Amino acid sequence: MSTFRLDPISKDAVVFAPERNKRPIDGWSSLKPASTKCPFCPGNEHLTPADTFYQKDNFNKWTIRSFPNKYPAFTEPSEHISGIQEVIVESVSHDVNMGHYTRGHLVKVLKAYKNRIASLKSVKNIKYIVVFKNHGFFAGASLEHPHSQVVGIDFVPKAVNKKLKRLKKFYNKTKKCYLCSPDHTKNKIYENSLFIAFVPESVRFAYECWIVPKDHKTYYEQSSHDELNKLAEIILKVFKAVNKCLGFPPFNLIINTGFLASHRSYFHWNIQLIPKTAQFAGFELATGIYINQINPGHAANQLKTYLDK
Amino acid sequence: MSTFRLDPISKDAVVFAPERNKRPIDGWSSLKPASTKCPFCPGNEHLTPADTFYQKDNFNKWTIRSFPNKYPAFTEPSEHISGIQEVIVESVSHDVNMGHYTRGHLVKVLKAYKNRIASLKSVKNIKYIVVFKNHGFFAGASLEHPHSQVVGIDFVPKAVNKKLKRLKKFYNKTKKCYLCSPDHTKNKIYENSLFIAFVPESVRFAYECWIVPKDHKTYYEQSSHDELNKLAEIILKVFKAVNKCLGFPPFNLIINTGFLASHRSYFHWNIQLIPKTAQFAGFELATGIYINQINPGHAANQLKTYLDK
Repeated sequence: MSTFRLDPISKDAVVFAPERNKRPIDGWSSLKPASTKCPFCPGNEHLTPADTFYQKDNFNKWTIRSFPNKYPAFTEPSEHISGIQEVIVESVSHDVNMGHYTRGHLVKVLKAYKNRIASLKSVKNIKYIVVFKNHGFFAGASLEHPHSQVVGIDFVPKAVNKKLKRLKKFYNKTKKCYLCSPDHTKNKIYENSLFIAFVPESVRFAYECWIVPKDHKTYYEQSSHDELNKLAEIILKVFKAVNKCLGFPPFNLIINTGFLASHRSYFHWNIQLIPKTAQFAGFELATGIYINQINPGHAANQLKTYLDK
Repeated sequence: MSTFRLDPISKDAVVFAPERNKRPIDGWSSLKPASTKCPFCPGNEHLTPADTFYQKDNFNKWTIRSFPNKYPAFTEPSEHISGIQEVIVESVSHDVNMGHYTRGHLVKVLKAYKNRIASLKSVKNIKYIVVFKNHGFFAGASLEHPHSQVVGIDFVPKAVNKKLKRLKKFYNKTKKCYLCSPDHTKNKIYENSLFIAFVPESVRFAYECWIVPKDHKTYYEQSSHDELNKLAEIILKVFKAVNKCLGFPPFNLIINTGFLASHRSYFHWNIQLIPKTAQFAGFELATGIYINQINPGHAANQLKTYLDK
């Protein structure tokens, strides 16, 4: 059973989730190309809970599937918190980088995200939803088979609430959405007709990239096929630059989408792609101050040079 | 030159420190027992700046030394921030775990911390001081030779300020210091006549241990020889338990000391020992909520069983 605690002094929110200790872990040095024991590989479906969603190919075999996380941090029901945590297996291939998906396949993955967000939104009491992907052990992935997670919980995390309040304040003051202002997307890496990829001006991590729709859009899950097609194009471009520049780094990818009707005016959905180039260390832990070793403008320029290489 | 930025929405504080990109890095897979190129090994003193402090043995050779960090995040002067960042090389041995120091040697290291904190405190404009140690690449150490760092900066980090305010509030309400209350140290691992080691009740990281003086003490650097001797004893006990329980994990160690005279009544100096057992991942990055896979009471009990093994 998970328990939730707020430290009275640091105000850090912590979920104690002993269940997660039982999950299988590929391990620090495991970069094996495939595994007969991998619960996400075709043939091992009996090792996972039943599907909540799947895509099939012409031969009636799954290409993408989702199911409840077997080792959730948010159990349902729990003492203080409840939530839903699903795994989305993105591919039948055990060892493939998201940057190597075909555009058509990535569109299908993006549609799976859309489907799962919409599904979790319809669940009673769910107040906050996020999609994220941890790629590589050093970015927190316990299994290497490419997968994402979607989590819905019955409260809005304090850090998220604070951000929303500041976005709302910005909107009320300027009558503009924060990410609609060109000032905030100026360290551009790439753009297409619908999306822009850039490095935010006060970003915490070296080479962190954001991808946002150019028009004001609040809810990822309302994206059309055409939008997801253009989104796939820009994601693949950014991965190409990141992977060539940093040598296929471990990474975290996060989709932040609006979760309430009231977010429409001031929240702009966005994707954060965070290559893992450094470790969280004593100074950050002690002070809450992040040390970023590259200026955002330089990071954007450097990534840009790899777009066409 | 370093620059400091506060994100207008997340309020994350970020220091952009491109100088740090130039520092040498032992690398991901480098666990070599010694290195002729290691700037911290005896014989390579010319690779580091001049000593600010040293301990010598009977043969007039250094055993512990400190000097300015060659690749600081806080350059002096800088555009927005200034600070001092020193490295303390703890040993002449390239590949030794702090848990294997003799008690006598550890006392000398603890005295070096005391000396450097006191020295930085006397520098004009320094408003906040912290000592930390990153051990192992996965805990953020770029060089494996055992070393600590002491940083003094000309502002108090926001997260630290907030904690201080809450400690002051707790004190004003209860007339007790937070860490003097037995409730807050109840998950005990070990104690001696002067110190107690425990797992805080809402700790962020699995197996994180705190060591605090039993009496109310605000300033680490005012510790006597007897106190540091007892501190060395409990630190070595805790390392023994952590290393046996977790197999010599990478770790971060942080010394939080009071830095203003006004902190005397409500701030209690403390050491945080944070074994690195998991990676920061997408969920934590998106929500600011930490997932801890072990209940603090269980972690303390588990560590306790390794004390006498």
